[in-house]
Amino acid sequence: MANPVITKWTGDMSFDSLVTGHHLIMDGAKEFGGNDQGPRPKPLLLAALTGCSGMDIVSILKKMQVNNYAFEMEADGESTEEHPVVYHTITLKFKFFGENLPTDKIIKAVSLSTERYCGVNAMLKASADVIVKIFVNDQEIEI
Amino acid sequence: MANPVITKWTGDMSFDSLVTGHHLIMDGAKEFGGNDQGPRPKPLLLAALTGCSGMDIVSILKKMQVNNYAFEMEADGESTEEHPVVYHTITLKFKFFGENLPTDKIIKAVSLSTERYCGVNAMLKASADVIVKIFVNDQEIEI
Repeated sequence: MANPVITKWTGDMSFDSLVTGHHLIMDGAKEFGGNDQGPRPKPLLLAALTGCSGMDIVSILKKMQVNNYAFEMEADGESTEEHPVVYHTITLKFKFFGENLPTDKIIKAVSLSTERYCGVNAMLKASADVIVKIFVNDQEIEI
Repeated sequence: MANPVITKWTGDMSFDSLVTGHHLIMDGAKEFGGNDQGPRPKPLLLAALTGCSGMDIVSILKKMQVNNYAFEMEADGESTEEHPVVYHTITLKFKFFGENLPTDKIIKAVSLSTERYCGVNAMLKASADVIVKIFVNDQEIEI
């Protein structure tokens, strides 16, 4: 077992979670009785997905001697209408910015994460279609 | 589509994610090249699981006129050895504290969340066994 996540109810729809030594407040939207003091829980799945793949990718690119770039991700979920409301489709965009970036290495690094290393991706893929897109300097590149 | 989650790489293994209007820092452990400025991504799945079910449960109990209690959750994941490292089993403990708590209503509220409403639970169940336990004043109760 890893360290468990401990989450305490702090009133209304607010929860304080201790995750690997760091506090995270989750809260509901105001229209659902919350006070919006922190993120909603479900989109945290998308944040975890970007963090997991992001850490893989920067590590792999570093090993490939690719260093001089900016990098961001965008993750969007499409939800079912019925309960339980789940993401049936997740679109995960990897966006790289920089000069003379090696497209082949970027594609390789992204694929290694999304197809082999990222555990969050592997878990979410079991229930959602995860669509991966790669952009270099705002230009989508073919995978 | 909901609002997408936007995550920016901020150097080393650190990522700044914007989730429903709130910033969340994710970072790697120091032994893996990170600076431990925020939680690891994968345990965020467990935090999301507790937040999602927690919000369901306090809402349901409020409708059932159950109000005077403290509530916390503990979520622990057991990981696979091979890549991708995923949680094959998640143990989710719901812990209620208070006097004369109505066990039947608590069981009902937990079940409604874990079996019907909580989308995070539904998603994670597709790849992991999610074992639910309920405790009232530190005494495990039969579900």
